[in-house]
Amino acid sequence: MTAQVIRTLRSDARDNRERILAVARLAFATEGLDVPIREIARRAQVGVATVYRRFPTKEALLAEAFAEQMALCSAVVEEGLAAADPWHGFRLVIEKLMEMHALDRGFSRAFTSRLPQTAGFAADRDRALRLMLELVRRAKRAGGLRTDFVLEDVILALMANEGIRAESPEVRVAAARRLAALMIQSFQADPVPARLPPAVRLPLSAPA
Amino acid sequence: MTAQVIRTLRSDARDNRERILAVARLAFATEGLDVPIREIARRAQVGVATVYRRFPTKEALLAEAFAEQMALCSAVVEEGLAAADPWHGFRLVIEKLMEMHALDRGFSRAFTSRLPQTAGFAADRDRALRLMLELVRRAKRAGGLRTDFVLEDVILALMANEGIRAESPEVRVAAARRLAALMIQSFQADPVPARLPPAVRLPLSAPA
Repeated sequence: MTAQVIRTLRSDARDNRERILAVARLAFATEGLDVPIREIARRAQVGVATVYRRFPTKEALLAEAFAEQMALCSAVVEEGLAAADPWHGFRLVIEKLMEMHALDRGFSRAFTSRLPQTAGFAADRDRALRLMLELVRRAKRAGGLRTDFVLEDVILALMANEGIRAESPEVRVAAARRLAALMIQSFQADPVPARLPPAVRLPLSAPA
Repeated sequence: MTAQVIRTLRSDARDNRERILAVARLAFATEGLDVPIREIARRAQVGVATVYRRFPTKEALLAEAFAEQMALCSAVVEEGLAAADPWHGFRLVIEKLMEMHALDRGFSRAFTSRLPQTAGFAADRDRALRLMLELVRRAKRAGGLRTDFVLEDVILALMANEGIRAESPEVRVAAARRLAALMIQSFQADPVPARLPPAVRLPLSAPA
């Protein structure tokens, strides 16, 4: 093969990979993690075999699709750690994570799911949680965070956030903001009632 | 037909109805509301037509399956209203509702879903929410509940509760108890840090 042909093949392969990831991200974010590989392939206009060649398992595809979001999570926690007041930093992290997760339900679900440790996703999540643990320690020492707070309470808050159902992403984010403010209230060592973001009408949704 | 035959037919019909409801309740509680009517019929060992004769729509089946749970919800709120201290009554209601909902995810989902107003379920829910509104009013007047609390915050707490995923009902209930205690902390007008129920390990679950 000529160099030109090889370059074209490589660039096609890269295009396929990017297209599969883009389609998967959108599908998982809006429809949840149940969207089958077959359907992802169809929407990306590639064969199922092409998807499996690049992502041997659904978990591998999930990990890759959300790698960027996961890195963003770590960055948020790092930002919180950099704050002069650790309790302020902690609050920022809870607010931002809950808002981020409300905007991408697929990612939110993936975050609290068992994914192969070999994937970058799981390693990055471990890193984000380790950083969070350090922030929790500092926020407690600074007297802002209640001493019986544990890292599992972050997971609990994120899972609680996942439960919010609303008719649009805007309403979901608004509800997540109020929930985050309430959770932060409850995490305070010496609680002072803070002003809450406005309440959100949560219209009853279709049953299934 | 003899009276005996008519009686037998009637009792068969009643048995079918009860069996369908029992199967539906179990299926919805453990697998969620997506279980199709066809599958309910199969497990109840009746024809699909028999199910549809008794429950013309999935919504009708849902409403009937959860009628008892819904009545229990109203009873819980009534009990809260009967408490001498409305803030104490309010707290009891939040704790009990979140625990009840954690034990039956199908009901929890149905509670926050749009179901036909004609069904007893929707009317009973409206009644429970009206009673709750009265309890909220009293708990605010008594000074226990923050004044910016709205009824939607109850829905928010119940949706948050729905987000909890755990490997067993016991762990789910334990996590719901901690979440309820945190939510109650955040709802206080003059917050005093209370002791929380123990934190729960929430192991990462399978992705889909």
